[in-house]
Amino acid sequence: MSQSPLLDELIAAFTCLPGVGPKSAQRMAYHVLEREREGGSTLALKLQQAINDIGHCQRCRTLTELEVCGLCSSPRRDGSVMCIVETPVDVTVLEQATGFQGLYYVLMGKLSPLDGIGPKELGLDKLKQRFAEGEVQELILATNPTVEGEATAYYISEMAKAYEISVSRIAHGVPLGGELEYIDGGTLSHAFAERKQLF
Amino acid sequence: MSQSPLLDELIAAFTCLPGVGPKSAQRMAYHVLEREREGGSTLALKLQQAINDIGHCQRCRTLTELEVCGLCSSPRRDGSVMCIVETPVDVTVLEQATGFQGLYYVLMGKLSPLDGIGPKELGLDKLKQRFAEGEVQELILATNPTVEGEATAYYISEMAKAYEISVSRIAHGVPLGGELEYIDGGTLSHAFAERKQLF
Repeated sequence: MSQSPLLDELIAAFTCLPGVGPKSAQRMAYHVLEREREGGSTLALKLQQAINDIGHCQRCRTLTELEVCGLCSSPRRDGSVMCIVETPVDVTVLEQATGFQGLYYVLMGKLSPLDGIGPKELGLDKLKQRFAEGEVQELILATNPTVEGEATAYYISEMAKAYEISVSRIAHGVPLGGELEYIDGGTLSHAFAERKQLF
Repeated sequence: MSQSPLLDELIAAFTCLPGVGPKSAQRMAYHVLEREREGGSTLALKLQQAINDIGHCQRCRTLTELEVCGLCSSPRRDGSVMCIVETPVDVTVLEQATGFQGLYYVLMGKLSPLDGIGPKELGLDKLKQRFAEGEVQELILATNPTVEGEATAYYISEMAKAYEISVSRIAHGVPLGGELEYIDGGTLSHAFAERKQLF
């Protein structure tokens, strides 16, 4: 017999969040109820609103409650440069870290035929149409450096060839502040092979 | 300009949870929207329900949506033994770890005159009444081994004296699996002074 069935249900519900196990869920539930009822109420409201309203941008497929997301509809962005990413969070981190002023296209995944994810699921037909419209002149492939991410980047670069779009891939190598000693062999070998001539 | 103002609000709302900074909040928001909308919806619902309905047990002051919590109302618990704890989560951890079959009394804090928390705020008047009713014969003080926790335990033990209740304090010392090398001096000195005679 527990103190409160509803509290047990709340703790169980918290474990749907990433990185939250039974102990953290317990801590969150008690924290909200003892000290943060107002914040908890806002969270419940915003969560339900977001789940109800947020869908995909009709231009770039990112998550948004708008028909066309804030980036795609901004008149200050340069429509001739397009950056391809796998997920909406990649857009956020690139926006925070870089001064990129072009537009994004969010695949919402990566090519993975075994999981039934082909070009259609990634909206590549719509991307092709964007290429055909002729506005995009430069393409930056920023998919993850995994096997599927590389395959996806290759597939899209082949697609872009037909439209005479200049295509680049983000650089891979040793991260800034990293130490060679702790970098995996694959990265190190890539960084070595792709070394940059200084003079 | 962001992709989605609502998404930004959701990320900000997640940071009210303990141990959740901007990065984790971002991860949670995207995870829920991309992969866990159903779980997120349940979380929003349970969170709002819990905030609306959960108050304090009229017997032991723990958090519950019931008038009298499941433990206090259970006929299988032994009303002659009472364990005093600071918070509802202490009840949960003691229930999980020990075979305790008595009842709890939850102070919802500890004596801290500087913060304006005196005997009344901890419901000690109600606790005295419970002592006066005569059912409680054994008292276990399980407040935290901090200065305030010790003071609270001492205050309650003095209160119980008048009613001829047998009082004990949970043991303090080196935790199981701990190594002397890494234990703080206070604990070690306590464990040494309170050593147990074997034969």
